[in-house]
Amino acid sequence: MTLRLAILGAGRIGQVHARAIAETQGAELAAIFDPMPEAAKAVQDKYGCDIRSVEAIAEASDIDAVLICTPTDLHADQIELFARAGKAIFCEKPIDLSVPRVQACLKVVEEENAVLMIGFNRRFDSDFRALRAAIDAGQVGSVEMLTITSRDPNPPPLDYIERTGGIFRDMTIHDFDVARWMLGEEVETVMAQGAVMVDEAIGKASDFDSVNVLLKTASGRQAVITNSRRTTYGYDQRIEVHGSEGMAFAENSHEARVQVANAKGYTRPPLLNFFMDRYTEAYAREIATFVEAITTGTTPPTTGQDGLLALALAEAANISVAEGRAVKVAEVLG
Amino acid sequence: MTLRLAILGAGRIGQVHARAIAETQGAELAAIFDPMPEAAKAVQDKYGCDIRSVEAIAEASDIDAVLICTPTDLHADQIELFARAGKAIFCEKPIDLSVPRVQACLKVVEEENAVLMIGFNRRFDSDFRALRAAIDAGQVGSVEMLTITSRDPNPPPLDYIERTGGIFRDMTIHDFDVARWMLGEEVETVMAQGAVMVDEAIGKASDFDSVNVLLKTASGRQAVITNSRRTTYGYDQRIEVHGSEGMAFAENSHEARVQVANAKGYTRPPLLNFFMDRYTEAYAREIATFVEAITTGTTPPTTGQDGLLALALAEAANISVAEGRAVKVAEVLG
Amino acid sequence: MTLRLAILGAGRIGQVHARAIAETQGAELAAIFDPMPEAAKAVQDKYGCDIRSVEAIAEASDIDAVLICTPTDLHADQIELFARAGKAIFCEKPIDLSVPRVQACLKVVEEENAVLMIGFNRRFDSDFRALRAAIDAGQVGSVEMLTITSRDPNPPPLDYIERTGGIFRDMTIHDFDVARWMLGEEVETVMAQGAVMVDEAIGKASDFDSVNVLLKTASGRQAVITNSRRTTYGYDQRIEVHGSEGMAFAENSHEARVQVANAKGYTRPPLLNFFMDRYTEAYAREIATFVEAITTGTTPPTTGQDGLLALALAEAANISVAEGRAVKVAEVLG
Amino acid sequence: MTLRLAILGAGRIGQVHARAIAETQGAELAAIFDPMPEAAKAVQDKYGCDIRSVEAIAEASDIDAVLICTPTDLHADQIELFARAGKAIFCEKPIDLSVPRVQACLKVVEEENAVLMIGFNRRFDSDFRALRAAIDAGQVGSVEMLTITSRDPNPPPLDYIERTGGIFRDMTIHDFDVARWMLGEEVETVMAQGAVMVDEAIGKASDFDSVNVLLKTASGRQAVITNSRRTTYGYDQRIEVHGSEGMAFAENSHEARVQVANAKGYTRPPLLNFFMDRYTEAYAREIATFVEAITTGTTPPTTGQDGLLALALAEAANISVAEGRAVKVAEVLG
Repeated sequence: MTLRLAILGAGRIGQVHARAIAETQGAELAAIFDPMPEAAKAVQDKYGCDIRSVEAIAEASDIDAVLICTPTDLHADQIELFARAGKAIFCEKPIDLSVPRVQACLKVVEEENAVLMIGFNRRFDSDFRALRAAIDAGQVGSVEMLTITSRDPNPPPLDYIERTGGIFRDMTIHDFDVARWMLGEEVETVMAQGAVMVDEAIGKASDFDSVNVLLKTASGRQAVITNSRRTTYGYDQRIEVHGSEGMAFAENSHEARVQVANAKGYTRPPLLNFFMDRYTEAYAREIATFVEAITTGTTPPTTGQDGLLALALAEAANISVAEGRAVKVAEVLG
Repeated sequence: MTLRLAILGAGRIGQVHARAIAETQGAELAAIFDPMPEAAKAVQDKYGCDIRSVEAIAEASDIDAVLICTPTDLHADQIELFARAGKAIFCEKPIDLSVPRVQACLKVVEEENAVLMIGFNRRFDSDFRALRAAIDAGQVGSVEMLTITSRDPNPPPLDYIERTGGIFRDMTIHDFDVARWMLGEEVETVMAQGAVMVDEAIGKASDFDSVNVLLKTASGRQAVITNSRRTTYGYDQRIEVHGSEGMAFAENSHEARVQVANAKGYTRPPLLNFFMDRYTEAYAREIATFVEAITTGTTPPTTGQDGLLALALAEAANISVAEGRAVKVAEVLG
Repeated sequence: MTLRLAILGAGRIGQVHARAIAETQGAELAAIFDPMPEAAKAVQDKYGCDIRSVEAIAEASDIDAVLICTPTDLHADQIELFARAGKAIFCEKPIDLSVPRVQACLKVVEEENAVLMIGFNRRFDSDFRALRAAIDAGQVGSVEMLTITSRDPNPPPLDYIERTGGIFRDMTIHDFDVARWMLGEEVETVMAQGAVMVDEAIGKASDFDSVNVLLKTASGRQAVITNSRRTTYGYDQRIEVHGSEGMAFAENSHEARVQVANAKGYTRPPLLNFFMDRYTEAYAREIATFVEAITTGTTPPTTGQDGLLALALAEAANISVAEGRAVKVAEVLG
Repeated sequence: MTLRLAILGAGRIGQVHARAIAETQGAELAAIFDPMPEAAKAVQDKYGCDIRSVEAIAEASDIDAVLICTPTDLHADQIELFARAGKAIFCEKPIDLSVPRVQACLKVVEEENAVLMIGFNRRFDSDFRALRAAIDAGQVGSVEMLTITSRDPNPPPLDYIERTGGIFRDMTIHDFDVARWMLGEEVETVMAQGAVMVDEAIGKASDFDSVNVLLKTASGRQAVITNSRRTTYGYDQRIEVHGSEGMAFAENSHEARVQVANAKGYTRPPLLNFFMDRYTEAYAREIATFVEAITTGTTPPTTGQDGLLALALAEAANISVAEGRAVKVAEVLG
């Protein structure tokens, strides 16, 4: 039996998922929706699916699951619509910029007993999974300290930044999720610091482009997150875990495994530059995991709760920067 | 327009190519042949192609090209058959174990003006291509010395070894091709040395499992090839090029980009263990290149001549070991 | 002309300096003081110097400079004594645990126009100096973000910990100095977080063994410091600098440049385990620099002001942890 | 008791040893000889030793041992002279360019029961020793294949080259010794290949600047040696050992443990450029070992026999290149 999926939103990430579906055994892209007809048409031409409206997809009896790749402000409403329509749902992060709105949305999901998976693609990266497996195998003992370095090659367009709700909810949210995954214990306190070093326009939009965050759990596990919106050397994605018995870390992916040596030194290529090159395989595994969760009736590994808690950490970081103090996550979750 | 291909031989490498065809834009697996019905059936079930005889494939008007993945002793006859039938041909190495037989075969190919590509998959590996690109970009200056390390995790089954014509024609032949590619000049002299260190049965089969080869071109460029039929740490595939202006090298591929540090030290995982894991992407690019060569009417990058010259180096190595002397390639080519 | 030095304190670090003096051109160990006669005797036996009292050293006309390697609570008084006695002074960090006491001490140094160098040995490490040189050469552009990882193999004895004034003033103080050196701008704000993960007795002594600190300068440069009092893999000392034009980092020193590969992976040895192995060369360069500063009449590279400001950062970190808030350094400096 | 040593030859290597003696506990440089008075004077001024003639040193009752750092053509005569004079002898490689002359010289050494150590400095390098220790600890199982890469930054002056007896006896001789050390079994057969790629004048002097050598022992252990007289990236010194249970390798030493990342990639500094930087520590350990052997009455780790056998391999390589054949070492040893 082949699972039939629909995608809402034919933008960059919608296309990534369309391709992932095409490569997934037991899954098929049945329909695409996008408010811009040409965008929907391009996906139709490439994958041979229908073009349908959001409502038609919700009502369709031949659609099993939907991938929500629309702008963030539509996510919560669409999750509720499809939860009520009995579809399995994959939604890109964040669910919403408001913690209470996310909580209300997740209540509907719970009431409808809907399958909801949130798109935290890094959890499906093979290197990060190997790191997590090393922790699970006891290779570092009990986790004590975590360092996540995450730097984008370039800031997104300014009009995008203005709609994101700030770097913590847009960019760091991935690292918050990774931190929760690696720490193996919920974060209790957040301290954060930000600066504008890359582009003054980002500061004028009341956002930061360079931030550091400290997290701490009840038992004393700590994490550091370092973010910048710009590098010259590619997409920098590293995780280091320090524990009672050892340390483990996931290294970056370079463009090629080649070095050149001369009087200037030994040079290896820069890092893979774009998230779609870096996480190609992770996106494919993410969709395969979603399909498998539906097929086997199991809970997806990244739930609505994960989406809520990562957002709560982002919100706590916002307050910490604004008020110059340590913020309890409980303050944000209410 | 979609190119329609047939595969002769549904064994391990035939299946690798069947999958590569399925992933190649503009190509389609139309037919499979294998003397064992179940083997052919398995490919048919997976890719939905016909099962046909060799003759039927040769005569078919709906087949554009054929991939010869049969045992080596059938290669030359099948190349001639399909050259005469006007099909484009991809043939696994070696064309034959005998230099004169290869020469005769290539004469037929030439007379029929047939497209013939030989399966030297390493030329399509992205890291090795990055290395070659570094040379082409002048980053090492003029090539002077080359070191190729190539070690298999395990020896093949003994009955396979007995049919290969020896390690130089079976395993080192890949390195001979890589050496020619990287040196950028034909080899003139060969010196070789061999030993049996892994399995005495290999020695009883009059073969070696551990060999070293020295190559030299007319202008004095030199290459070293080091081969072993066994490692404990995965599939070891390295190339180092030393030139007048610098040195460049391609490094191995590990199972993951993760390290664990403890009192024993810093440990990264072993290498990808099997040629199909290590060269997955290379096999896909190889087939895409074959398809593109046919479609665009260009010469494939690995020709029958490449197949002949790599075999000649293997033959020269055999003589060198047997007679304890430097052997001119011209002696072998006649 | 040979400079004649005296050392106060024949403990571990005093012995390190005695050896460094013996290897320094143009310098000679003239006298040692230690309240424990055997300790002083051991240094005398090894280096052939006099044993004298503190007062005798201060009054001696044949002593040019003194190295203060006594317990911290004696440092400030001894600095004042020797400043008034007209000797050049090298003092181990910290000058004192109290910021006002340090300020008072430095006032005396200034009034007496004394030469005072503080023992921040990491500034003399060749790798860190190469990193600083890369920054100075513009290789990372303008410095934006700094990450310092500093982890000791083992916590010091508990009775030592009880006298240190806490991890920030004892251990992190080195990282505070490195941060100031690498940032190239004074720190304005400090946020810190601590936990007890290694030994509960450390917690009972009102100290932490695992801390993270965030620093920020007026222009928005940020630093992260990560400290642990325990590793299983050696003495972990890393610095990473991220700037507008690139990133640069200093890597750790392993016990040997050797790797072993087998089915478990590729393993290199753990890190040099002890600060005296890791910084042997740095200690020698530190003393040579002190001697050179005296000889040439130049200001030493690590002054009393550097000692004061690193301590102020430690004090700010203490307040930050205690009060859960960002602390301005100006609050501490008064 | 302090051992009193004399050095014959105040050139570059003589000075290296003079410094090593100064840093060695229990040893003292008592006398220097050099035909050029200023050269001897410079050593005297630096280390405060006597200047004496070769004969005076041989007859002196206050000299325990001598270091022969004179030109190669004087080595054998001086070894015999000092063996007869009852002095312990350290001699730079090679003992002589002629195998029979070395054999005659070693006979005198044996008759006089003299202590003779040959200056194969690489055996005292800490990384190579760690590699050898890994082999001894069984970490690679039984040694099967060895790869030695050894490339000098620049060729020596032409007049030096003309006196060396060729690259195999001058440069590769170090690698022959390392190969014997790592293989743990005597070499039986040698195959070699050479070319002139760096400087045509070297070819006119009937020498090569780029060579490859294959070695094989009776049990089938093999070694590859790769030499070039020029690199752009520093002094390249690597050893890789492949065995039945694993692989181990010693890596190069870079100028600093620092990397810079930008759009061109990740760059670490070139290698230490000169043998005296690369092997500083090895030279010190070499002399300390010589002193210790004399003091404890034990056999030095690099004997006259080691000098002879490395020379024999060089001689075999010369014949192999000249005659294009595998050469038995027994042919050379007579």
